[in-house]
Amino acid sequence: MQLGMVGLGRMGANIVRRLMNDGHECVVYDVNPDAVTALAGEGATGASSFADMASKLEAPRAIWLMIPAGLTGQVVDQVAEVLEPGDIIIDGGNSNYRDDVRRAAKLKPKGIHYVDAGTSGGVFGLERGYCLMVGGPNEAFDRIEPILKTIAPGKGDIERTPGRTGDFAPEELGYLHCGPSGAGHFVKMVHNGIEYGIMAALAEGMNILKNADAGVREAEHSAEIAPLEEPEFYQFTIDTPKVAELWRRGSVISSWLLDLTAAALEENPTLDGLAGRVSDSGEGRWTVKAAVDTGVPAPVLAAALFERFASRDEDHYANQLLSAMRLQFGGHHELPTGDVLEAGARKSDQAG
Amino acid sequence: MQLGMVGLGRMGANIVRRLMNDGHECVVYDVNPDAVTALAGEGATGASSFADMASKLEAPRAIWLMIPAGLTGQVVDQVAEVLEPGDIIIDGGNSNYRDDVRRAAKLKPKGIHYVDAGTSGGVFGLERGYCLMVGGPNEAFDRIEPILKTIAPGKGDIERTPGRTGDFAPEELGYLHCGPSGAGHFVKMVHNGIEYGIMAALAEGMNILKNADAGVREAEHSAEIAPLEEPEFYQFTIDTPKVAELWRRGSVISSWLLDLTAAALEENPTLDGLAGRVSDSGEGRWTVKAAVDTGVPAPVLAAALFERFASRDEDHYANQLLSAMRLQFGGHHELPTGDVLEAGARKSDQAG
Amino acid sequence: MQLGMVGLGRMGANIVRRLMNDGHECVVYDVNPDAVTALAGEGATGASSFADMASKLEAPRAIWLMIPAGLTGQVVDQVAEVLEPGDIIIDGGNSNYRDDVRRAAKLKPKGIHYVDAGTSGGVFGLERGYCLMVGGPNEAFDRIEPILKTIAPGKGDIERTPGRTGDFAPEELGYLHCGPSGAGHFVKMVHNGIEYGIMAALAEGMNILKNADAGVREAEHSAEIAPLEEPEFYQFTIDTPKVAELWRRGSVISSWLLDLTAAALEENPTLDGLAGRVSDSGEGRWTVKAAVDTGVPAPVLAAALFERFASRDEDHYANQLLSAMRLQFGGHHELPTGDVLEAGARKSDQAG
Amino acid sequence: MQLGMVGLGRMGANIVRRLMNDGHECVVYDVNPDAVTALAGEGATGASSFADMASKLEAPRAIWLMIPAGLTGQVVDQVAEVLEPGDIIIDGGNSNYRDDVRRAAKLKPKGIHYVDAGTSGGVFGLERGYCLMVGGPNEAFDRIEPILKTIAPGKGDIERTPGRTGDFAPEELGYLHCGPSGAGHFVKMVHNGIEYGIMAALAEGMNILKNADAGVREAEHSAEIAPLEEPEFYQFTIDTPKVAELWRRGSVISSWLLDLTAAALEENPTLDGLAGRVSDSGEGRWTVKAAVDTGVPAPVLAAALFERFASRDEDHYANQLLSAMRLQFGGHHELPTGDVLEAGARKSDQAG
Repeated sequence: MQLGMVGLGRMGANIVRRLMNDGHECVVYDVNPDAVTALAGEGATGASSFADMASKLEAPRAIWLMIPAGLTGQVVDQVAEVLEPGDIIIDGGNSNYRDDVRRAAKLKPKGIHYVDAGTSGGVFGLERGYCLMVGGPNEAFDRIEPILKTIAPGKGDIERTPGRTGDFAPEELGYLHCGPSGAGHFVKMVHNGIEYGIMAALAEGMNILKNADAGVREAEHSAEIAPLEEPEFYQFTIDTPKVAELWRRGSVISSWLLDLTAAALEENPTLDGLAGRVSDSGEGRWTVKAAVDTGVPAPVLAAALFERFASRDEDHYANQLLSAMRLQFGGHHELPTGDVLEAGARKSDQAG
Repeated sequence: MQLGMVGLGRMGANIVRRLMNDGHECVVYDVNPDAVTALAGEGATGASSFADMASKLEAPRAIWLMIPAGLTGQVVDQVAEVLEPGDIIIDGGNSNYRDDVRRAAKLKPKGIHYVDAGTSGGVFGLERGYCLMVGGPNEAFDRIEPILKTIAPGKGDIERTPGRTGDFAPEELGYLHCGPSGAGHFVKMVHNGIEYGIMAALAEGMNILKNADAGVREAEHSAEIAPLEEPEFYQFTIDTPKVAELWRRGSVISSWLLDLTAAALEENPTLDGLAGRVSDSGEGRWTVKAAVDTGVPAPVLAAALFERFASRDEDHYANQLLSAMRLQFGGHHELPTGDVLEAGARKSDQAG
Repeated sequence: MQLGMVGLGRMGANIVRRLMNDGHECVVYDVNPDAVTALAGEGATGASSFADMASKLEAPRAIWLMIPAGLTGQVVDQVAEVLEPGDIIIDGGNSNYRDDVRRAAKLKPKGIHYVDAGTSGGVFGLERGYCLMVGGPNEAFDRIEPILKTIAPGKGDIERTPGRTGDFAPEELGYLHCGPSGAGHFVKMVHNGIEYGIMAALAEGMNILKNADAGVREAEHSAEIAPLEEPEFYQFTIDTPKVAELWRRGSVISSWLLDLTAAALEENPTLDGLAGRVSDSGEGRWTVKAAVDTGVPAPVLAAALFERFASRDEDHYANQLLSAMRLQFGGHHELPTGDVLEAGARKSDQAG
Repeated sequence: MQLGMVGLGRMGANIVRRLMNDGHECVVYDVNPDAVTALAGEGATGASSFADMASKLEAPRAIWLMIPAGLTGQVVDQVAEVLEPGDIIIDGGNSNYRDDVRRAAKLKPKGIHYVDAGTSGGVFGLERGYCLMVGGPNEAFDRIEPILKTIAPGKGDIERTPGRTGDFAPEELGYLHCGPSGAGHFVKMVHNGIEYGIMAALAEGMNILKNADAGVREAEHSAEIAPLEEPEFYQFTIDTPKVAELWRRGSVISSWLLDLTAAALEENPTLDGLAGRVSDSGEGRWTVKAAVDTGVPAPVLAAALFERFASRDEDHYANQLLSAMRLQFGGHHELPTGDVLEAGARKSDQAG
């Protein structure tokens, strides 16, 4: 079928290629004319404006936006101006699902359908296909299903879930109609929230392995920090890159994020050049806020998010205050004077 | 090569079968003679006692224990009595790595090597192979490496980590010498700690999806609980079994634990019959204690563990106390009387 | 000075009494005429409507709303209709500070000042005075300062903070101009967020004390839960009500919430009749959302909030899923059969 | 009554003074002879060795150790050598309660009683008195009760808990017999665990207040971090030192730790010179480990502990790994090229 694609960055261009490979016809637009020319050279039809794109698509049209979330609102408005009732706008970016709900309501009086398609897969998507979480009206979903089927990974060589038989369901092919407009990005949001949690679990665990030699390094510790109590049990020097690779083989925690960890440690075993200031993007935050709104306990997902904040020193003022309180207790930065014998390692909080 | 196997439960028996399939020779023992007879029927040499087993193995011997962790200590002692200097005892169970350290030290004067082999793979191991995390002296590891290579999954059809070339390293074949005695179970312990974290991330995320319909169910809420503030954004009825299946296809969080989640939800979509009282075993606890000992932040792994405790109502007394404090503030269980207009939904904590 | 009070529930009425005791003149209104009559009998001027109240106050007027947060929006609108430029509306309830920002903006064109006064102190306020966190324009704050000074606790017999000398600052008297409209309720919101954290710290700690006898109760434990490893160290039967009382005397954690805990345990040492389903109100949630919005790590405040959710079984679906995953590992609810010797206590996760 | 005091540091010396003021007779020893001379000048009897101290005390003796926890074990052994059956050794330091259990068992065959006295109050104890949490045999506790009564704060001017009448119970006077040897330090351990939680709740809350101006500072944010979504709601510049002072007056969270916070911020409003590397001592760690051992959920106490670890960059390796994984997703540190329009603020995780 025909699809208009707005935004020919890496993901947009790769989706167009995946569609054309499967026989679909694409009309493409980008603010950068070179990107249009390049894809036109691969068989797409170039468009010079939204109006031009609309004229080159037969009604009812379907136009996919693959653009930064910060721009989606205005582009949806501009595209809607050149469309007719029955046409479909698909947001394949990473909008907040609340914006989807608002945009769908705004477009409804014009008879234009709004579909949100949460898209996971990253730079590997051209080859692996993209996991698609879709929200929108039934009618619109049904119409664009051929497109979705092509963009999604398909059944691939993943073992089928026991108990499933017969024809493959859409979710087994890698796309799913999750509900009305917003539902797709809601599911994608939670997906990313989980992603943060899994990443944190792996990172914390590897950090414990890294510190299995604490008993060897003990001498460096200062008097203000509780000394290791049983150094004889922390004498291991674990090769974390090898362990990451090992766990890919038959362990319970084998996963794509572990594959990435192993790859990262193979490439850069000492993690040189990484400051450990971890970025976060909207979805992890929105997930925690959704949990708070709906009264769902999410301590693991929240802890994973807060660790990222702390990695960027956003805990600095809180930590200063803690030190300030300890100073008030008195003498916490000096060893008590006049104590019997030589001042030994203090294992506990004298003034506590 | 030759191996003695003590403990012919599901895992022990399957390991023996995997070894015999690959041409190794096994002498087997279990407290249950029927288990011995059964495996003898498949080609193993049966033994009627530890001494009998020792006599049927050529020195230097290697004996693998696949028994409940609670029994390992005494069985190690008993087996050691029938062994000679240079022999090897392998604990393939789930001992606390601290016990390994102690046992290795105890056996050292006798010249007997102690090897701990953390084993992951569950009921799928016969077919998939077991991921092996091994601790012990170099000499012992080298000697039993042929056995480990057979038990492990091998390279299988898992994509090779980018950058790795040439011969496959042991970790790529699914076994690794992690360090001296105890190091194997230390790595296995952290593996399970991570497992708890990943499971919790998935479970919390699915719970948020399940509650995406909070705006529809709002009417049921009581006055004592903060009402949902923007019900219009929580109107989705998400089919969580389908989402679990979907995420297996090309998403960033695809993983074996997600496969299991999808399988569980396919088998029992409404989770009927599950009370949600989640057991925990030693490793998750030991991981958190190791983090505390070594000063490593592990909020995600700890939160995952504490959620399991809470699922069994171990938070009951704490919660009673919180309610008791709120009662002391005064009036928290009654709506204020005499307030203007009809008492509406209270969004906040009057007495706070 | 003169003040109009709308809402004569417990807090509204007590504030009126506190004001009249100090010589201020109050015009009072409530939807319940009996409440008006009662306070009129104590010296207040009754009003029969908002318009009547406005007519009984000299311009520029100040009207304090002490009503449930859910009603504040509409009452602000109604009261504004009978006011003139230069008049002040004070919201003493527990509004979300975002509503304050919106309301202040809406009233600004009319020349009406909006002041938000976060009020802490609970049922003890009539006697102790109320801690007042105030947001609004300087002009309005200055005008109502005499009222605030009366409602606040004053310097009382609390020891002065070292370093403070001379005249007592407003914050030392128990009221503070925190910033523009909304700032008062923002500070109050965070206050309640902290309150949740402190309550949780106390409750968790007391729960650990309660379980210091775990080594005595050990026999009851099931095979699916990790057995206590060193029961000899958990042989204490701690009298938690006595400990709560003790800590009020000279300990570092002495606090008003500890006083309440001691009182609760004195009144009901076994906490009979408390189901431990802990309510939460808006502020704790808003605090976590503000932390997420601004990128501030708040794992303790979030954990305290999520514990309340879990106390109401909002973790049920997540826990069911965890159990379902464990079932998939295989055999987690049965002890392995055929194992050597009698099946002993399993200390670890066989299939993990 | 008579008491021997070993260790004349600040706490030991102040306890001796408090005892002498109340008419008790003290024999004192310290490794530093000047400390002995100084207290002898105030009325104490100096001792030149443990043996000398024993000879100057009438049997049955009571000797209090106020020394660093790291030295307690050896000093207990040395003191025990000069004592007789029926004598009492009191450890007033901050030992791990497990050491108390071991020491009491070791001394029992000699007929020497071992009492552990967890002591809270910090540098303010001379004046305020010390909160005493005591473990040991009934007989020993009864004998030293006069001493405990003097060291404790007594009823002071703290309001009596409602419902308590008649004679003041020991816990109302600030000391309590918590159980057998070890129970005192167990209760003190949990006290400090709670202390960490309360401190963290205050520090996190103040940090949120500090960042209430995030909407003003927004321009500084980088593209890799999610931009603030509703900057209009984060326009407050809160004076945190004033708020800390304010909350001391009538608020629900008034507490001694808040008093210290206000004092710290009065002394150093900008917290200059504090790096925010927060120390921790044994008790906070032991509390979390006790919670893990006994299966008690303690997410707040654990989060508070882990925040301290993270403040000292113990999360560095984990954070590096998270950044490394994000790099693997691809392109996370560069903005996507070729995207439509100017690259705007990315609100979400493109590759997620």
